[in-house]
Amino acid sequence: MSNISLFQAKYQELKSRLIQIQDLEAASSLLNWDQTTYMPTGGTYARGRQIATIKELAHEKRTSPIIGQLLEDLRPYEQSLPYDSNEASLIRITRRDYQRATRIPSEFMAKLCQHQTVSYETWVKAKSFKDFSLVQPCLEKTLELSQELASFFPYKHIADPLIDFVDEDMTVAILRPLFSQLRQKLRPIVEAITSAPPMEDSCLYQYYPKEQQLKFGHTVIERIGFDFQRGRQDETPHPFTSSFSIGDVRITTRVYEDNFSEALFSTIHEVGHALYEQGIDIELEGTPLARGSSSGIHESQSRLWENMVGRSRGFWECFYPQLQGIFLKQLSSISISKFYQAINKVVKSPIRTDADEVTYNLHVMIRFDLELAMLEGKLAVQDLPEAWNERYKTDLGILPANNSEGVMQDVHWYGEMIGGMFQGYTLGNLMAAQIYQAAIKYNPEVTVAIEQGDFTLLHEWLQQNIYQHGRKYTAHELINRLTGKSLSIDPFINYIQDKYSNMYHLKAPISA
Amino acid sequence: MSNISLFQAKYQELKSRLIQIQDLEAASSLLNWDQTTYMPTGGTYARGRQIATIKELAHEKRTSPIIGQLLEDLRPYEQSLPYDSNEASLIRITRRDYQRATRIPSEFMAKLCQHQTVSYETWVKAKSFKDFSLVQPCLEKTLELSQELASFFPYKHIADPLIDFVDEDMTVAILRPLFSQLRQKLRPIVEAITSAPPMEDSCLYQYYPKEQQLKFGHTVIERIGFDFQRGRQDETPHPFTSSFSIGDVRITTRVYEDNFSEALFSTIHEVGHALYEQGIDIELEGTPLARGSSSGIHESQSRLWENMVGRSRGFWECFYPQLQGIFLKQLSSISISKFYQAINKVVKSPIRTDADEVTYNLHVMIRFDLELAMLEGKLAVQDLPEAWNERYKTDLGILPANNSEGVMQDVHWYGEMIGGMFQGYTLGNLMAAQIYQAAIKYNPEVTVAIEQGDFTLLHEWLQQNIYQHGRKYTAHELINRLTGKSLSIDPFINYIQDKYSNMYHLKAPISA
Repeated sequence: MSNISLFQAKYQELKSRLIQIQDLEAASSLLNWDQTTYMPTGGTYARGRQIATIKELAHEKRTSPIIGQLLEDLRPYEQSLPYDSNEASLIRITRRDYQRATRIPSEFMAKLCQHQTVSYETWVKAKSFKDFSLVQPCLEKTLELSQELASFFPYKHIADPLIDFVDEDMTVAILRPLFSQLRQKLRPIVEAITSAPPMEDSCLYQYYPKEQQLKFGHTVIERIGFDFQRGRQDETPHPFTSSFSIGDVRITTRVYEDNFSEALFSTIHEVGHALYEQGIDIELEGTPLARGSSSGIHESQSRLWENMVGRSRGFWECFYPQLQGIFLKQLSSISISKFYQAINKVVKSPIRTDADEVTYNLHVMIRFDLELAMLEGKLAVQDLPEAWNERYKTDLGILPANNSEGVMQDVHWYGEMIGGMFQGYTLGNLMAAQIYQAAIKYNPEVTVAIEQGDFTLLHEWLQQNIYQHGRKYTAHELINRLTGKSLSIDPFINYIQDKYSNMYHLKAPISA
Repeated sequence: MSNISLFQAKYQELKSRLIQIQDLEAASSLLNWDQTTYMPTGGTYARGRQIATIKELAHEKRTSPIIGQLLEDLRPYEQSLPYDSNEASLIRITRRDYQRATRIPSEFMAKLCQHQTVSYETWVKAKSFKDFSLVQPCLEKTLELSQELASFFPYKHIADPLIDFVDEDMTVAILRPLFSQLRQKLRPIVEAITSAPPMEDSCLYQYYPKEQQLKFGHTVIERIGFDFQRGRQDETPHPFTSSFSIGDVRITTRVYEDNFSEALFSTIHEVGHALYEQGIDIELEGTPLARGSSSGIHESQSRLWENMVGRSRGFWECFYPQLQGIFLKQLSSISISKFYQAINKVVKSPIRTDADEVTYNLHVMIRFDLELAMLEGKLAVQDLPEAWNERYKTDLGILPANNSEGVMQDVHWYGEMIGGMFQGYTLGNLMAAQIYQAAIKYNPEVTVAIEQGDFTLLHEWLQQNIYQHGRKYTAHELINRLTGKSLSIDPFINYIQDKYSNMYHLKAPISA
């Protein structure tokens, strides 16, 4: 065999092993999707075991020394190929995954998973009793385990490896100053907006029958570009997106009949994730490249479609007449301007997931800072509720009614770990603004097309520049390729200033 | 370690390996269920690959030499325990499975699977063109592969190993004389019935709205005992039952709005399978014992509920008033006697799956005999259509309109193999009658209870005597335990004679 055909044979072996792992992952995702959508309650016990078995097998195969050896053998081949060729990218990304997976001892992973299950159940109970002390011992253990997990990796800041799991190449050294600037800019904007008379949004809280909400949502997301031949929508208590293959990407939605915003905007949010997964180059199918680049980039796509598109005036120039036609009783007397203001109401509220796009990042950054403080050993778990409440007072000027609406509101720390859990949300918002700005710069017709109900210009640009590449590029690489610049807070701040100065008729620029 | 605790440790190792295999099987079943129920068409390509990967992993684990070694090591332990203890049964059944699986070379399995896919697709096309010659070369290859598959096993008759895959301990030496007797008894009965004036069944072919059919079916199967906490019902083009665990057993149904029988009776049929799977002792969960005993025994449960219960007069004494209430326009002028006759109409028809319970076995036995003739080399595939038509003329007095309604009507030979495909259907009918007779003998109140809508007597007896044991006993063992006798055609023939002599007011016993 020649050198080249030897390399190609090894590459094929690597690829087929990776596809096998991906097939196990897909099975595990389907077991999970089914559990949340259609599984009868009697299936719960066995389903937990089945998912654990499949995940364990996938882990075993992912950390097999054979993969390590193939990756070593393929180094010269990788170096002979263009950086962003499918082959070089697959080898590069697999090497990262392999190094990450093999650093963590299997026994530790088993211990962590077991603890996560217990901790999650304890949190559900503690939250229902509004009693943080019930879950405090669990969270202390979670903190220890998170620190131990980080310790398997070299790091500058202890949170770096945990952040790196989901946001490759992001570090505390990058994020802390970025978030600090963002907070400084955001707080005066929030103050200015919330000092003005609040927007009227009671029109959103009338009776909106479920079937009609779903039907309208279906029309919207099909128009945006969600491909129902390669996906579907189901109902679950918490919305999420699952990808079983590039040809099968599913979203879920929840509908509240007394709240119009909830279903529609969370549906558009999930569709943002789904467009990304549906748009990956079919050549990458079944490989580890066939996913989104990072938590931040993925979130940028959901937030771009949900907020920058879905809550824009142009979007509703297109859809509002149709919406009024469906909900005649509820909306016939509401002008498009009033509706637009209602869906963009800014308010200081205690719950992150209910927050508008202006205050949202303040919620996220509180969590990010508290995670770091706990990991650094500067904040004890028992002092967390107090620290939480203090920061809410300082940053948002409000105090949660109790710990269930405060420190226990999000599942992340209680069901997963401490560290790396939240930065992706704010990165997503920042990147969404930067990416959307680039899209408009490249093609200024984008927003006009949207007003006319044509989303293809934007969709195709994102497809071309982001979606098709899957995991080939890191977030940094993507942002630089697209915008010629590093990640920055400016596009997001500009977007917020433009949109809300206008809406609130504030004369001067509203930031300090 | 003492001998006993050493054995127990090895037994636990065996069990946990088997559970892992079962979890893979469950994942593969779910991938398949999802493909048929909810998967968007775009998922097809990757789904085929995913199922193949999971099945291959399961096969690899099932044939691992470690399992062989554990089974050897556990022989003394097995012999020290009662035959039908969970432990001895698990070791015994696993040994059978292991020996069967390891005799077949992996390369052969891969070749067979690949051919089956091609053959299935060719059959779909050939059937739509009503052209047997298109699929003939495929079927010739299938015959060769079926013969090769049998050759990996010792046998008296070449079909024996293929039958044994699904109907343990059944052989051509047992089945041929049994079926021959059955045919001799059945043909004059069919002649006598079909010589009488035909039953009027046009009441079943009115417009029955789908939602109401599904609602009524739901009421019926819940009353029978299908546990919706541990199962669900969905719609698919072909009805089937899937079990993902004892707590999660699902049936599917198809509804024709111009045909009342189709949905209801196929639903009750699937529920018969499902009650079996839901009724397995929870101690057996996740092991290879947590399935039905054999193809014949499984089918006996579906046919018992579908025909002996669901098409009985007593059943409709309970449900007919309710049915009339729902379909007032369609049924208010139809008496229960007329309805009962309509759902039990006997007619010579060319299609097996449409056949009534009297003619049904004649269809099955034609296929069984043709399978044997082909495997023996006495019938060439090219002569199959002619042989098929001849037998239909002799046994049922009819000639199929074309090969799509004749020799190509069933998927089995084209999608699976030749041999072992059909005997289970007739075994199921025979066993159903023998088992139902035993249930009534044990508790004569069974039929009275059914008239009053109480199915618990029957359900609990089946639960106690069949369901809970899963695969512990072979069909022979079960039948002997339940009835004190070997499998016999007499209960079935008596059942048919009683029911239809009565219905057709034929004076003398109708059999020859």
